[in-house]
Amino acid sequence: MRKNFPDRKNRVTVRVPGTSANCGPGFDCLGLATTIYNYLDLTLIRSDKVVVEASGEGAEKIPRGRKNLAWQAVKKLLEVTGHNEFKGAIIRMKNHVPLSRGLGSSSTAIVAGLTAANEIVGSPLNRDELLKLATELEGHPDNVAPAIFGNFTVSVMDGGEVQTFSFRPRIKLKLVVAVPEFELSTRLARKVLPKKVSRADAIFNISRASMLVAALVEGREELLPLAFDDAIHQPYRKKLVPGMTEVFDAARKAGALGAAISGAGSCLIAFTSAKRGHEDEIAAAMVEAFKAHGVESKALILNVDTRGAQVMHK
Amino acid sequence: MRKNFPDRKNRVTVRVPGTSANCGPGFDCLGLATTIYNYLDLTLIRSDKVVVEASGEGAEKIPRGRKNLAWQAVKKLLEVTGHNEFKGAIIRMKNHVPLSRGLGSSSTAIVAGLTAANEIVGSPLNRDELLKLATELEGHPDNVAPAIFGNFTVSVMDGGEVQTFSFRPRIKLKLVVAVPEFELSTRLARKVLPKKVSRADAIFNISRASMLVAALVEGREELLPLAFDDAIHQPYRKKLVPGMTEVFDAARKAGALGAAISGAGSCLIAFTSAKRGHEDEIAAAMVEAFKAHGVESKALILNVDTRGAQVMHK
Repeated sequence: MRKNFPDRKNRVTVRVPGTSANCGPGFDCLGLATTIYNYLDLTLIRSDKVVVEASGEGAEKIPRGRKNLAWQAVKKLLEVTGHNEFKGAIIRMKNHVPLSRGLGSSSTAIVAGLTAANEIVGSPLNRDELLKLATELEGHPDNVAPAIFGNFTVSVMDGGEVQTFSFRPRIKLKLVVAVPEFELSTRLARKVLPKKVSRADAIFNISRASMLVAALVEGREELLPLAFDDAIHQPYRKKLVPGMTEVFDAARKAGALGAAISGAGSCLIAFTSAKRGHEDEIAAAMVEAFKAHGVESKALILNVDTRGAQVMHK
Repeated sequence: MRKNFPDRKNRVTVRVPGTSANCGPGFDCLGLATTIYNYLDLTLIRSDKVVVEASGEGAEKIPRGRKNLAWQAVKKLLEVTGHNEFKGAIIRMKNHVPLSRGLGSSSTAIVAGLTAANEIVGSPLNRDELLKLATELEGHPDNVAPAIFGNFTVSVMDGGEVQTFSFRPRIKLKLVVAVPEFELSTRLARKVLPKKVSRADAIFNISRASMLVAALVEGREELLPLAFDDAIHQPYRKKLVPGMTEVFDAARKAGALGAAISGAGSCLIAFTSAKRGHEDEIAAAMVEAFKAHGVESKALILNVDTRGAQVMHK
């Protein structure tokens, strides 16, 4: 694959993890990558043509032409790196990440497009540079950061610049995601948030986000049961996710360390550890609690992805 | 020293570190212990008499009778552990921590009293239990937590309960503290704070506090320059500390990674690392910037204390 351009083949397949932003207290800051993946097979072509094929999750809703998000990312990468010899692409997407549910499906498309195009043109950009472009395209780093780096990520915005640190927890976490039937738009989920929060609620989140990071990095599972709670976004969003509080309670009661809205929803994510177990019971309890509020859902049991976006070498 | 009660001698000396709360973004949550110490020599007596001797920093301001904070802590410990055979104490304090400047001097008295009395009666309480009592006496865990555990601490309040995690940074930090002549009361420093903050400012602090913890625990110095900034308390307190912003700027310009108000002030604390150096230049720059605003100050160059409150065995 690493032959010099232009002998390199113009086709590559990449795999990008679905991601969960916020993790409770880390609103617009923390994120994690999961072991559910979208695949993108990209062929860059010299003719001015964009062909998109999609299969799997939400395939029927994915734009097929130049509005396709992966193509937008490919185009951006080609512009930034000055590779104007390619005018079009054949894009084949195979998706497992549910669409518009708070698992970063749009970020997978952006990161996949950037990563694949970067690989074909000889990897001129490193991951930090890809993160910068991805953040520009997505508008925030919450999902693109873990999609690129894997593991947990802490992102800080400084002016328009993003700085991200990815760390691998010293606890083997198990993630239980309840995926409801209904979609939730990030725009709507943002709209219900007040412009101001009480100082006490800000401190609530600052202390828990700090504790969450410290406990994960140092592998101190006994500190996690307090660490997934939030006071600045979830209380306002619960009206958008019927049964939210009850699903959280059910997850804890079944053995979870804590639970949170995944990104801007609609998925809810519960956290346990391999040592602690009870994934199946947690999954069943969450689905049942949703059902009691008239919401059909399916559960996914996932691990934390440790690699981030990967080029699939044959 | 570990002979069984009542053969044990009723006298002990303890050493407790001065502490710096908040560390910028970690308002009411993060704290650190420093290598400046107060010493307390406690003798428990059966007669109903409290004698306090004090020397060193602020000695003339320390209450000599039953209002003495260390005695209050001793009394509390004796009550909680049921040791009513002791009715009084001889307390000798030797203080190096400046008084009412945001370096946790009152916390040293509380933690010293609890630790010394606990030792004399046979150490019935562990450090978590001492923290609970100390937090009750002080009203918040910000300074008592690092005074007890040493290193950096993350504290979460859950209802009235406090949970604290102490971690040793993997970066050898150097602390430069500018101690101004004037005192600042915590009450006044709290009074200037608004009840509400913008969601953006809350996120500013959540992300930086998370980054600070992650960078310290993982030893990633290059991530620290963004991590000491704050948006939810310092901007409101700068009117109480003349020249605050300029002292911060001067510290950074002289090589500091960042700077913050120590606790509720009046001290300002700058952070550098042993690798990065420039402590002396940072100290001089901070004192000079204060002076330009009519504030006389002295500088302390300290390390992070790694042990917390210690019984001094001869």
